Amino acid sequence: MADLAQLVAQLGSQARAAARVLATTPAARIDAALLAMAEELLAAEKVILAANELDVAAAKANGQTPALVDRLTLDAKRLAACAEGLRQVATLPHPVGQILREWTQPNGIKIAKVRVPLGVIGFIYESRPNVTVDAAGLCLKSGNAVILRGGSEALRSNTAIANTLSRGLAQAGLPAAAVQLIPVADRDTVRLLGESVGTVDLLIPRGGRGLIEAVVRTARVPVIKHYDGICALYVDKAADFAMAEQIALNAKVQRPGVCNAIETMLVHRDVADKFLAQAGKALAAAKVQLRAEPLALAALQKAGVAAVPAKDEDFRTEFLDLILAVKVVDDCAAAIEHIETHGSRHTETIVTADAATAEHFLNNIDSAVVLWNASTRFNDGFQFGFGAEIGISTDKLHARGPMGLEELTSYKYVVRGSGQVRS
Amino acid sequence: MADLAQLVAQLGSQARAAARVLATTPAARIDAALLAMAEELLAAEKVILAANELDVAAAKANGQTPALVDRLTLDAKRLAACAEGLRQVATLPHPVGQILREWTQPNGIKIAKVRVPLGVIGFIYESRPNVTVDAAGLCLKSGNAVILRGGSEALRSNTAIANTLSRGLAQAGLPAAAVQLIPVADRDTVRLLGESVGTVDLLIPRGGRGLIEAVVRTARVPVIKHYDGICALYVDKAADFAMAEQIALNAKVQRPGVCNAIETMLVHRDVADKFLAQAGKALAAAKVQLRAEPLALAALQKAGVAAVPAKDEDFRTEFLDLILAVKVVDDCAAAIEHIETHGSRHTETIVTADAATAEHFLNNIDSAVVLWNASTRFNDGFQFGFGAEIGISTDKLHARGPMGLEELTSYKYVVRGSGQVRS
Repeated sequence: MADLAQLVAQLGSQARAAARVLATTPAARIDAALLAMAEELLAAEKVILAANELDVAAAKANGQTPALVDRLTLDAKRLAACAEGLRQVATLPHPVGQILREWTQPNGIKIAKVRVPLGVIGFIYESRPNVTVDAAGLCLKSGNAVILRGGSEALRSNTAIANTLSRGLAQAGLPAAAVQLIPVADRDTVRLLGESVGTVDLLIPRGGRGLIEAVVRTARVPVIKHYDGICALYVDKAADFAMAEQIALNAKVQRPGVCNAIETMLVHRDVADKFLAQAGKALAAAKVQLRAEPLALAALQKAGVAAVPAKDEDFRTEFLDLILAVKVVDDCAAAIEHIETHGSRHTETIVTADAATAEHFLNNIDSAVVLWNASTRFNDGFQFGFGAEIGISTDKLHARGPMGLEELTSYKYVVRGSGQVRS
Repeated sequence: MADLAQLVAQLGSQARAAARVLATTPAARIDAALLAMAEELLAAEKVILAANELDVAAAKANGQTPALVDRLTLDAKRLAACAEGLRQVATLPHPVGQILREWTQPNGIKIAKVRVPLGVIGFIYESRPNVTVDAAGLCLKSGNAVILRGGSEALRSNTAIANTLSRGLAQAGLPAAAVQLIPVADRDTVRLLGESVGTVDLLIPRGGRGLIEAVVRTARVPVIKHYDGICALYVDKAADFAMAEQIALNAKVQRPGVCNAIETMLVHRDVADKFLAQAGKALAAAKVQLRAEPLALAALQKAGVAAVPAKDEDFRTEFLDLILAVKVVDDCAAAIEHIETHGSRHTETIVTADAATAEHFLNNIDSAVVLWNASTRFNDGFQFGFGAEIGISTDKLHARGPMGLEELTSYKYVVRGSGQVRS
C-alpha cells in the first residue's frame, strides 16, 4: 500500500533527522532525557494502564493464550520497573565518542578510530510492551534514533508509551522523533522497514523464529538476529560429578524457557553409568523429561531413572521446556563433533577437571559463548557486566553473543593532517 | 536449476569443513601455505597465462571494451606481483586468537573476548583474475575458507589460478577446499551463494553498483558492500590556499577512477573568488572539467577559468573521471548540510587553519573517514597501515571504511569458571 510506504518513509526521514542531532548531543543531555522519560512514564501511569487494559481485553476476547496475555499485561509495578530501567541506563557509561584506537602514520597523519552511533535502528518485537521502553532507552543511550514496530496486540499500550517517551525527550530538548512507534498494526510495515535502505542502519527483530525468518526473508538492510539456542553441556570423564550435576540442573531447570538453557547433555562413556545414575535422578526429581539415545537410556534405566528413547530430531530441537536430550559420547572429540553438527552456535559448556581437555573444547567449539565449569545461563548481557542487553546475537557479524550498548554503535576514522597528499 | 543449487551447496559444505580445520590451524602453518601458494603460482605460470590468453581472446572476440580487456589480462609480471602479494600477507600479524578484552566478574567467572575467523566468506567480483589471488590470501590469513565467484569472462584464468592455489594448500597440509572457485559462469550462482544461510557467514561483492545491487537484492546472508564514493573537499575561509589547492589536485587528479577521489568541492563564500581563481586554474590545467553552480561559475568565469553550469545531479554523481562539481557555501554548517544531504558517507575532508571549525566538521560529518588538512585518497587499507585491504565498506555494521584482516574476523566469548551457576 502506497500510504503505508509513505508512512514508513516519513518515520524514516524524521528518524534520520533526529539521529543527526543525537550523534552530537552531549552525554549529559542524553542522560537527562532518559530521566525525563522515566518521570513521564510514571506520571502517565493511568493513561498507559488504561490503554493496556483495552489491549488485554481484546487479547482475551480474541482467545489469545494465557502466556501471551501475561506478557502483554502491564501493572503499576511493571511500569515502575520500566522507569527504573531507564534510570539505570542513564547511569551506564556512554559508548559514543570512545577512542577505540589512535595512531600516527609515517607521513604524519594522525588516525583515530572513534565510536559513533549506528544512526537509525529499526526494532521489531512481539507482545511485551515493556520492550518498547527498554529498546527506546538503549537506543537513545547509544545515540541512535529508533523506529519501533511492536506486536499488533500491544498497539494501544505501545502507542501510549511511545507518546510518553517522546514527551520526555522533548522536555529534555531532544527531538521527539528520536523514539517513534509505527502506529499501525499492518504486517506489511515489517517488510517496509526492512526495505528502508539508506534510512535504517540496522534492523533488530526480537521474537520467535517465525518472526525472525519473516524479517530476514525480505530485509535489504542489515539485520542482527537470534535464531535457536540449542545449547549443550558436555560432562567429561574428568568431571567433578557434583559440579556437573549442579550445572546441569541450573542450565536446564532454573529457567527452561530461555535461549541459554541447555537442551542437550553429552556424557563421556567412561563415566556415563555413574554420572547418569546420580544426575539423572536429580533431573528427574526436578521434573525434567529425559530423552536418551540407547546407551544413555540403558544407563538411566539401570539406575531406575525414568527416561524415554530420543529421536534424532531431539538433538536438533530447542525445547524451551523441561525436556533434555541425553547422549553418551566416546570422548571430547565426539562431543565437539556432535555439537558442531547439531548445535546452533549459541552456548556450550564443558565440565572437566582436565585443563587440556577443556582448552581443546573451548578452542574447537564455534559458538558465541563457550564455557568451562560454568552454567550456560551466563550468556547474558547483565551476567557479563554489560549493564544492559538488547538481545543475544547468533550471528557472527558485528555483534556475537550478548549485545549491550557498544554493540549498538559503529565507528568512523578521524584523520588529522597538515596538508598531506598521496604520492 | 537443481544442479547449480547442488553444486553451490556442495562447495558450501566443503568450505564449512575446511573452515573448521582452519579455525584451529596454527599461524605458522597458514603462513607456510601462503608461501606454498605463491610458489605454485610461479610454477604454474605457463598454464595460467595460457588459460588467460583464451579468456582475453574470447573477450576481444566478444567486443569487450579495451578497459575490460586490460583488467582481464595477466602477464608474467602481474602474476609475479600476485605471488609477491601472498608472501607479503604471510608476513603480516595474525588476527585470529587475539584477546580483545579479558575480565573477571564478581562471581569469579573469567571472560575473554577472543578473535576468531568468520568461517566461510563468499567473494563475488568482476573481471580481474588477480583478485582471485588477493582474496584467497586474505581470507586464508584470517582463518577463513572462501568461495570465489569471479566474472564469467575470466573463468578459465580463475579456474587455473584456483586449482594452483588449492595445490599449494594441499602441499602445506591444509584442506584444498579452503579456497574454492565456482566453476561455472551461470549468473544464478550469485543468488545461490547469497541464499546459503548457515553456510556462508559473509558475502563480499566487489565491483560496480549494478553487481552490488544485484547481490543485495537477493542475499539472505550478511553482506558488506561498497556503494558510491561521492567524496567532498570543503575549503574553509581559514584555509591555507596552497594546501587546499594541493589537496584538491591530489584528491581529484592523481587517480580519478577510484572511490576515494573527490567529486565535489565546496568553497566558503568569503574566499570563493580568490581561491577559485587560483585553484580553478590549476584544476583546469590538469584537464579537470569544472561543473559549477551559479556563484562558483561566476567566480571561475571572472578569473577566466573554463567551467560549465552544474546540474543538481552533478552533486549526487560519482563521476570516476576528471570532472568536479563546485559550489560556494555560506559557511561550514552549510558545507556539512550539503554533504549530509548529497554525500555517500564515504570520505570527506576539510581544509582550514581553524581548529574549532575543523573539529565541528569532523564531529558532524557521518562518513567512514573524515579528514582535516589531508587528501581523501588516504581512505585506504595500505595508507592506514593495515598491510592489506579486501575492500572499503560504506556500511556501518561490522566494518566501516578500509577493511583489512581484522575486519574478516568475528569473536567469541570464552568463559572459565569453577562451578559457577546462576542464582
